[in-house]
Amino acid sequence: MHSYLLTLAYDGSEYAGWQRQDGFETIQSCLERAFGVIVGTTVPVHGSGRTDAGVHALRQTAHVRIERAYDCHKLLCALNGNLPKDIVVRSVRPVSSEFHARFTARGKRYLYRAWVSRIRPVHARGSYHWVKRPLDLVRMQQAARSFLGEHDFAAFASNPGYERIHGTVRRIDHLHVIRRAQGFDIFAQGNGFLYNMVRTIAGTLIEVGLGKIDPDEIRHIITSRNRSLAGPNAPARGLYLMRVLYPPESLRAPS
Amino acid sequence: MHSYLLTLAYDGSEYAGWQRQDGFETIQSCLERAFGVIVGTTVPVHGSGRTDAGVHALRQTAHVRIERAYDCHKLLCALNGNLPKDIVVRSVRPVSSEFHARFTARGKRYLYRAWVSRIRPVHARGSYHWVKRPLDLVRMQQAARSFLGEHDFAAFASNPGYERIHGTVRRIDHLHVIRRAQGFDIFAQGNGFLYNMVRTIAGTLIEVGLGKIDPDEIRHIITSRNRSLAGPNAPARGLYLMRVLYPPESLRAPS
Repeated sequence: MHSYLLTLAYDGSEYAGWQRQDGFETIQSCLERAFGVIVGTTVPVHGSGRTDAGVHALRQTAHVRIERAYDCHKLLCALNGNLPKDIVVRSVRPVSSEFHARFTARGKRYLYRAWVSRIRPVHARGSYHWVKRPLDLVRMQQAARSFLGEHDFAAFASNPGYERIHGTVRRIDHLHVIRRAQGFDIFAQGNGFLYNMVRTIAGTLIEVGLGKIDPDEIRHIITSRNRSLAGPNAPARGLYLMRVLYPPESLRAPS
Repeated sequence: MHSYLLTLAYDGSEYAGWQRQDGFETIQSCLERAFGVIVGTTVPVHGSGRTDAGVHALRQTAHVRIERAYDCHKLLCALNGNLPKDIVVRSVRPVSSEFHARFTARGKRYLYRAWVSRIRPVHARGSYHWVKRPLDLVRMQQAARSFLGEHDFAAFASNPGYERIHGTVRRIDHLHVIRRAQGFDIFAQGNGFLYNMVRTIAGTLIEVGLGKIDPDEIRHIITSRNRSLAGPNAPARGLYLMRVLYPPESLRAPS
């Protein structure tokens, strides 16, 4: 068996998320259909994790195991020829049979994009969240610092039932709010994120920017483990999975 | 009669251009329908010029003459409530009865956006032109300088028949090629542009960037007045009407 790591970009607007689901078009289904055409047999595509309906990816990763060896460039071209316009394989590389897109990952980086304007935006409307009212970015940047480090983030998870198995403690290494010409970008990097955690952090930071939550309250919200104290989930259309982080040695080509 | 100047943004992807046309959805038709609902009579909307099918606008302008006076903010809200999502009125201001969106204009500024990548882009695909091969931006910047000043731009017009009335001499004041993270932007400002002129300039600069046209040839192409020597029209989806320039005194509110 030969293992390959795929790096993928997609516009999630038209999909019911990553995960294969009967009766819904998903990113994973599209990839598995493309592999079916190329390889001629069923090839399960294992993602680094699920992205929700409407969430985008700049560099999502997935691995596959195939019986015969493929030329990576030819496999990339064949896949892109069999994928819809809003999904693209950016690279294909051979990896060892121990590599697993999800379990080998050591962290993830997300981007949350917002457009701040009284007037509704008309261009690339599926690419960011529209915030109508002005935000205080300095307050947001101050609040962002309280998230750094290892914490129990139960207050920022939508599905604590599922998290019972894996726990709700995660480590956030970077959380930056960057001013852009038309709004702001939030960059979040950590060793893992709970379900909806980035969107809840983004929604909470927006509430801080609007003056509804005080930057000093963030520590209290975290320690409360109470989802109802955090802000709403910011919409999926602003969220991008930017990068999945792997130990460099795990990406070495198999000998 | 009361005159109002509208500033408009739109995503042109779904429209057959600015100009009212039987059987096609256009920006002008949408605006005139919105005015019909609000004012209750037919209000012709006079644009600063036509934008082609698929071309976008950041600040297109148009004027209307209406019998009764309107509060500008209320008119703006009413229009936006009656326009589709991809058209928005950014501002409404009262102007004198002499003001004409087209004839009072002294110049225009356009933006042409390209995404340069071997891999097809998946995000905001209607917002820029995809160029597959790498471009030499220094060559493009060198070529851009040859367009500056007043020239007969017949070689860069798609419809010389129409231009016989108005002539094909125009003055370009700025033409900049700016590197962006994922491609480049071309900014063009002049006292007017012939039909398809910005797209032909963009297409020609791309050919220069690809090495197909030498930067020194631009002067020769201009003086030839021969359309077939210039590059192809770059696709509409990369083009944005950025701004229409008016003499400051023309924008004074009527007394």
